[in-house]
Formats: sequence, structure tokens, C-alpha cells
Amino acid sequence: MIKAGDLVKIWHPKRDDSFLIRMEPGYSFGTHFAQIKHDDIIGKKYGSVYKTAGGDVYLLRPCIAHYTRSIKRRTQVVFPKDAGFILLNLNIVPGSRVVECGTGSGGLCCIFATYVGDTGKVYTYDRREEFSELARKNAKKWGVDHRIEFNVRDLEEGFKEREADAVFLDVPNPWDYIETARDALASGNRIGILIPTVNQLVKTMEKLEHCDFVEPETVEIIMRHFKTDYSRMRPQDHMVGHTAYLLFATKTEVSYHNEEGNELDNESNTVGE
Amino acid sequence: MIKAGDLVKIWHPKRDDSFLIRMEPGYSFGTHFAQIKHDDIIGKKYGSVYKTAGGDVYLLRPCIAHYTRSIKRRTQVVFPKDAGFILLNLNIVPGSRVVECGTGSGGLCCIFATYVGDTGKVYTYDRREEFSELARKNAKKWGVDHRIEFNVRDLEEGFKEREADAVFLDVPNPWDYIETARDALASGNRIGILIPTVNQLVKTMEKLEHCDFVEPETVEIIMRHFKTDYSRMRPQDHMVGHTAYLLFATKTEVSYHNEEGNELDNESNTVGE
Amino acid sequence: MIKAGDLVKIWHPKRDDSFLIRMEPGYSFGTHFAQIKHDDIIGKKYGSVYKTAGGDVYLLRPCIAHYTRSIKRRTQVVFPKDAGFILLNLNIVPGSRVVECGTGSGGLCCIFATYVGDTGKVYTYDRREEFSELARKNAKKWGVDHRIEFNVRDLEEGFKEREADAVFLDVPNPWDYIETARDALASGNRIGILIPTVNQLVKTMEKLEHCDFVEPETVEIIMRHFKTDYSRMRPQDHMVGHTAYLLFATKTEVSYHNEEGNELDNESNTVGE
Amino acid sequence: MIKAGDLVKIWHPKRDDSFLIRMEPGYSFGTHFAQIKHDDIIGKKYGSVYKTAGGDVYLLRPCIAHYTRSIKRRTQVVFPKDAGFILLNLNIVPGSRVVECGTGSGGLCCIFATYVGDTGKVYTYDRREEFSELARKNAKKWGVDHRIEFNVRDLEEGFKEREADAVFLDVPNPWDYIETARDALASGNRIGILIPTVNQLVKTMEKLEHCDFVEPETVEIIMRHFKTDYSRMRPQDHMVGHTAYLLFATKTEVSYHNEEGNELDNESNTVGE
Repeated sequence: MIKAGDLVKIWHPKRDDSFLIRMEPGYSFGTHFAQIKHDDIIGKKYGSVYKTAGGDVYLLRPCIAHYTRSIKRRTQVVFPKDAGFILLNLNIVPGSRVVECGTGSGGLCCIFATYVGDTGKVYTYDRREEFSELARKNAKKWGVDHRIEFNVRDLEEGFKEREADAVFLDVPNPWDYIETARDALASGNRIGILIPTVNQLVKTMEKLEHCDFVEPETVEIIMRHFKTDYSRMRPQDHMVGHTAYLLFATKTEVSYHNEEGNELDNESNTVGE
Repeated sequence: MIKAGDLVKIWHPKRDDSFLIRMEPGYSFGTHFAQIKHDDIIGKKYGSVYKTAGGDVYLLRPCIAHYTRSIKRRTQVVFPKDAGFILLNLNIVPGSRVVECGTGSGGLCCIFATYVGDTGKVYTYDRREEFSELARKNAKKWGVDHRIEFNVRDLEEGFKEREADAVFLDVPNPWDYIETARDALASGNRIGILIPTVNQLVKTMEKLEHCDFVEPETVEIIMRHFKTDYSRMRPQDHMVGHTAYLLFATKTEVSYHNEEGNELDNESNTVGE
Repeated sequence: MIKAGDLVKIWHPKRDDSFLIRMEPGYSFGTHFAQIKHDDIIGKKYGSVYKTAGGDVYLLRPCIAHYTRSIKRRTQVVFPKDAGFILLNLNIVPGSRVVECGTGSGGLCCIFATYVGDTGKVYTYDRREEFSELARKNAKKWGVDHRIEFNVRDLEEGFKEREADAVFLDVPNPWDYIETARDALASGNRIGILIPTVNQLVKTMEKLEHCDFVEPETVEIIMRHFKTDYSRMRPQDHMVGHTAYLLFATKTEVSYHNEEGNELDNESNTVGE
Repeated sequence: MIKAGDLVKIWHPKRDDSFLIRMEPGYSFGTHFAQIKHDDIIGKKYGSVYKTAGGDVYLLRPCIAHYTRSIKRRTQVVFPKDAGFILLNLNIVPGSRVVECGTGSGGLCCIFATYVGDTGKVYTYDRREEFSELARKNAKKWGVDHRIEFNVRDLEEGFKEREADAVFLDVPNPWDYIETARDALASGNRIGILIPTVNQLVKTMEKLEHCDFVEPETVEIIMRHFKTDYSRMRPQDHMVGHTAYLLFATKTEVSYHNEEGNELDNESNTVGE
């Protein structure tokens, strides 16, 4: 049964149009094909059809992949194909403490918050107040804002956290964030970075090596959708050509270079005689 | 600090070889390059280097993507690129109740169990006793076996669960499982199916339509790794060409056809006047 | 120097718009940005800039890949990524005799005609008069119509040619053309088939095997374009997701099944002692 | 009928092994499964089966795509998927005059020579004598050596040709060849460059712009093969992940910068009033 407070996916199959609406008694929402009262939806069964003046719609349960596509955004949002892989490669699981920069529209931040559960926490940073606010609103609608700490903060101040389970960067100049990311991350754990261009990729890889990150892994994930007519099954004519490269690396305790490029004394970090 | 009971990723950078070992006091493990005592590792810092007779190794924290690659397996394991996308598209989150068939070596089952957390549950089915046993062992090593119910059961008996948050199928003949999957799944929620060949894909799509699943979505996720030399950055020479197609669809309450292909009376399921 | 009769590519860099125009003294052509007299272009140097009221345009030499994109078409045209691979895999070279069905808008037909040169010939078939006419016009503009024989003919009549160097099929039901294609093709040579859907692919593969074609090779060619800003180098955001599968196979003389599925006596075809 | 002098593809279907052999009376060739006399093959029909002690083999006609894979090589050879696209984008057709550097093992050079026909010419350059020799041998076997001029020459001397229809570069440092390539190429025509890494790509793109090439087009062509069992149709498990990026650009007459980066006076090149 659909209850007040539920997030419902209203899907119009003929128009292939869908809306994510949080049910609030007394409210209604307008689409280009009909005006729909929340009270008419509340109490209906998930999976059922609701008849509107503009045609039948289905009342479905939204999944995380749908959430991401439906948030209000002023930035490019991280795609599900990338977000799912990031979770598994940064080991973001129930209970994890995750540091993220920048917040952007909050899409990835909300996915992280979903998966760390009530025992975990996401610390997200953006220097732009307006993005932090937008992300907070999106997180509230998504119902995970209590698991997120929103920081409006400049790079120079660095991240506050230490011993984080994972750090994720989605900024134009990731190479400038590697040192502060290293400070925030627990040793033996992984950083993930979303990188649109090859120029940024080369520069970031070099910086990671210099900061003694190991196991660098760069991938791109290409996703093809198929048409739905099973009697003429084929990939869709058009597809997304590129979202971003994903770069992962692991923090070590082995050695660390100072600004002049000399190795710092790090004997105390090395184990084994 | 690495503690007894921790799962540690031992990585030999020069050989690019790695092992996932659960630390047990008094034990030791042998590789082709060295014999290593667990007691020598326990108490060391994650991210540090440990010197062995056969060269230095790093002591790292394994991530979910590494787990999957390291389990003992007798079947093709679901790749992280696919597993992450499945999570987000089946809405498998902390607290979810997930039905899966077949269990196989248990890799995907353990990923599901990781993400449903202690408040969720994974009900996995396989008709082959030996796979169920293998998966149980893998889940135990992974530390998530208490969140999984292993069922050795034939298709004819069907799934026991009802109102499940998600159903996932990885069987050679998914079309035979659609009705029992439909019974187990809560309406408005999604089924996910892993399908290696186009022949199976066409047949399964047809069956899903006949059982009133909507929003069918077929994708294939292609992943390219890059080489790690950033002065000569390029994709790797070889890549995985195909794992499987992923098919998702949503259960509705609209109508349901009986065995003769006639529509059953389903007025009671339709909402709206 | 650009001469009368030349085909010139007029490229407007700011609008990223281009036109292929055959120079004819006394004529002019209109674009949305300017009216241009052929006589003003004739005598100019290739590669030079011509100033129009609507901005500068470049006078360039069109390449085959551009031709294909510029022909008048009423059907999906074969992409250069596919056409080039077809040439090399069907062994279409100067002097080749090639049979093609269907003609469509004539794009691939003109590419074949370009590469068989004046010593080769393309025999193209289409049952639709209007396509044959359109293709003939395109071939004339392209300057290769004298190397092409246009046939308007139904499948039942079959191909007239024998001992062809290559046969290419681009029809909705290729399985119905395999026997007549086999008759037209020289033994030891290859057939190529353009196939949009997996359903067609499976059916055609089965038929080819039944007709004793060997070395079946199915490929799909995926092409990604990059953005041109080299300081932010990355693949384009969108790309073509699918054109068609390409299927190649080789005709043999070994055995041939009659309509009842029994093997015909083909001892005379088998060599060796 | 197979004649003396023909190049025959001997294909062993059970071993999926094949050999390209030029038929010379009196000769024989040995494989790991049989010793075969050329005289036994000559006079047989193409497409027929020949019985050997080690099993049946097919006698087929090799296509260009097979040639490329079969030449003796000491360098990475250009793949058919790339070679076909290069032909169409550089407008290499019967009669074309093409400049190529480096020669390498001669695979691409022979493809060019095949398609320019007897009225065209390929001028190929390599500074390494041994590669020039290897390529010459391959071209002789391929039967196109009379259409190729092999040059052993250092970059400093530049290309001898002027007003070439196309220039193709496959060298580690293409940016150093852009000026000499520009001198050799007819204005309005295109250069093509094969580039393995993104670092080389960025550097070459910058140089091309500086030398007033326009319409830069960078693509990568990804090819997937399918398995051949049509009852279980699916892409192959493994595929080639990367061969090279292909970069094309068009030479213009507009302006040209001298070594100090200042624009040269090029009014005489600009057309229009």
C-alpha cells in the first residue's frame, strides 16, 4: 500500500514519461497530461494502474537508479553504471565513513548515504554554498539527509576527517586534492576519482604516484541499452559516449615525498624488520 | 591496526599477485614466493609494507570488488561492473529482503548480503547441494553468512518468499522462473536477470511481457581498463568482450494471463475509478 | 585548382556545416547563410578560404566518407566504419565483380563502384524502382554510375551473375537470399550481410550453415568520436549505439542440402584423391 | 581453378588454423599436421576440400583482411577495422598517390597499394633498412610491390613528394612529421595518423592546429566478434581492447605560422575578394 511520505514513481507508459513524487496528504501535482491529487494515490497498491484524464499511469516503487536521474540538478550527475562500480571499489558498505568532494547536486552523495546506512556517515564538501543547499534539499527528498554532513569549505582548509573508509573526488583539479585526501583516508584504503578528460587523468595519475598511492586502476564503463521489441532485438541507435574515467588507488604508509621531491623519513611507517 | 579475524589483502607489487587471507593466530599461509605467519601480520598497520624472503608485500584492506575476484568458484562469477549496477537497479539497500536463484559460487549473494546489512536478508536458491555448500563457505569467509538463507530446492517447488524487495535470476532457463519470481516479488518492484546469450534474452523478454512485467530494460556494461603508465596512457590491449546482458523489469498488478493465454479477471487489482 | 565538374566540399567552420557541390559553370547554390556562384569557386585553390556574406568557408576535397554522408537518401545508409571493413573482408578490389542486394539509396553501391575501378563492375538489385532511380542519381553525382548495373528485380528471379568475386546483402530477410547468393558467388569467396537485429542474425547464421558456407564471422564495429579541444581531450558525450551486425562467410563446394534437408550427391565437387 | 602463382588460403576447420601459400610448381609446404605438395593443390577448385594425413582442409581465396593477419611482421600491424576506415577517410582510391611513414612490416602499405591499383602509387618511408626489406618481401608475396616505392630515409630529409592525395603517419613522434607531411600533401586533402596513446594524441592535435590543419577528427574503432554457435549467440568472451586512436585532419592554404609562432604572410593563398 502506498502511504503518506512514500516516494512514488508515476510512470506514463504511452508517453514513456515518469515522475518521482513524495506523497503528502492535501497536495497535488500537475503534469502536462493531468493534475493528480496525492490523496487519490495514497492507499493504492504499488504496481497498480491509476487512470488519469491524460491516460493510464503506473504507480511504481522508485529504485536508486531512478532517484539519481530525477534529482534537481545544476551539474552533471554521476550515472548508475559508474556509481555502482564506485561503491564496490571503494568498499562503501553499511557503517562506512566516506569523505566526498565536491558535493555538486548531491546525487552520488545520496547514493553513498543510502548504502552506509544509519550506522555510517558521508562527509561532503563543496566551496559553493548554493550547491550545498541544493544537495541538502535533494537528500531530504531522498530521505537520507541525516546521514550526511554538508561542508562549505575551501580546498586550503582541507578535509577535517581522519581514518576515513573511503574518499571520493569529483572536482576539476583533483591533483590539488590528493594530499588532503591522503590525510583524511585510512591507510590501506582507497581513493576514487571521477575524471572527464585524458589531460586531467595523466596529471592526476602522476600526483597519486608521487603521494605513494599504489594499485592505480583506471577504467571507463560503457553502457549500451537495447530496444525493447523482442522480435527485433537490437541495441538502441544512440548511446552515451562518455561520462568520465574512473580512477582508483590505494593509500600506503611506505614513504612520502616532501615538496622538493625528496623522500621524507618514514622508517616508522615501514613494518617488518 | 590489523587484528585477528581481519581479512587482509596481501599484495606483491612486483609479481602483481595478491591474496585475501583471514588472520588467525597460530596459522600461516604459503605462497610460491614465501611462507607467511599470521602472527607476523597481526598488529601491523594497514597500508604498510611487510618484507618476505620473496620480496616486499603490501598489507591492504580488501574491497568488495576484490572479494568477488578472490572467492573459490566453480561457476562464472558476476563481475563488479555488473553487480554494482544490479544493486542500484533492484533497489537493494540496507534492510532489503532479496530472493536470488541460482546461488552458484555465492559471489553475488555475498555482495547482496553485504549491502542489505544486518536488518536485511538474502534468500538464495540452488538445486545443487554442492554449490550451496561452496557458497556457504565463501559467505562465512566473507563474514556475511548470517544474513543469508541457503535453500537447496527444485524449481517446481517455487520460492517460499512473498513481498520481496527484489528478485534476481542467474539460471540457464530464466523463462521457467518468471511465474514463481512474480509470486515472490512485491508489486511495483523489480526483477533482475543475468542473461549470457541473445537467444535466452529474446525468450525471457517475451515471457516477462506475458506475465505483465513492465519497463523492461536490457543493458550490457562494457568495461575498459587503462594501462597504468601515465606517460603512455592508453586502454589495455585486451579486455573482457562479454559477461552477460542484464535485464530488468517491474512487476505490476494490472492483469495476468492464465496458462491458456487468456487474461484473468484482475479488476480487483486495478485502481482508479 | 578547382575545375568545372569537380565535386567540392564547402565547409563553414563556425557553423560546422558542409555541402558537397559539383561545379557547373553558370550555376549557383543557396545555403541559409549565403548564395554562392559556381563560377566564383572554379579556379580557386583547394584548401583555400572563400569569403561569403555569411562568413568564411573552406573549399575542400571531399573524401569517400564524406560522400556517403551527403547523398540523398530514403534509407539508412551504411556507415564508413562498416563499409571499409566490408571492402577488406569481401576482397573488393580494383577489377572485382560484385553483386549487391538491395540497392537502397546507393551509398554502399557507390563505394563498391569506387573501389572496383574501371576494370570492375557492381551489379546491384532492388525490387523497388524508386530506389533504383535514386541510387542511379547518386551514382551519377558521385561519378561512378558507369561501373554499376542497376537491376529492378524480384527475389524469385534470383541474381543473373555467376562466379562473382563477392556478394553483399542488405535486405530484411537475408535467409531467403542465401541460395541465389550462393549461385552467384564463386566458390572459395565470401558473402557479406548487414543485419540490424539479433533475431535476423540467428536465423541467417542457421541458413548459411545449412547451405555449406564456412568460416562464419559476426562482428559489430563500434566507433567513438573524440571532442576536438586537445586541452580537454575526451570522447564525445553521445555516440551511435548500433548500426548493424556484419556477418561474413565463405562459400564451399563440399556438400549441398536439397530442400528436404538431405545431402545431395556432391562427390564431383570434392577434391583430394 | 587454382593456378600456379595463386595465393591460396588453406584452412583446417577442426584446428581452426589457416595458412596463406603462393602456389609454385614443384614446391611443398609443411604444417604440424601434414606435408602438402603445391602440385596437388594446383588444378583443384577453390572452395573444395583437400584430404591430408592430418585431416581435411579447405582451399579458399584469401581476402585482404586475411592477408594483413598473415604477413611476416616485426611490428604491430594495422587492423582491418582501422585500415578500411582509413581508406575511406583519406580518399585512397584507384589512381591515388599516397605517402606513408613508417613502413613497418608493410601491412598497411600493401592495403594502400591494393586499392590505388596500377594507376596509383604508394611512397613509403622508414629509416630502418631492415623494415623496408621485410615490407618489400611482404609486398612481393602480396603481388603489389610494383605499386610501391620504398624509401629508407631520415626525417630530416623530409618527404620528396608534393601534391599527394593522402599522407599517412604511423610513427612514435607524429608531431615532428607534420611540417614535412604538410609539404607533401595537396591542399584541401587529408592526413591520417595512427596514435596509440592519449599523450601522443594531445601533442599531435596541438601541432596540427598550429600548422593550419582543419576538421580534426579523432576516433577509436572498437570491434567485437561474436561466437559462431547460433543457438547460443553472444559476443566472444575476450576482445581487443585497444589498437590505436585514428586522427584525421585537412590541409588548408589559409595561414601558416613560422617557427617563432608568428603568422606568415599568406595573402596570396587566400581566395575571395
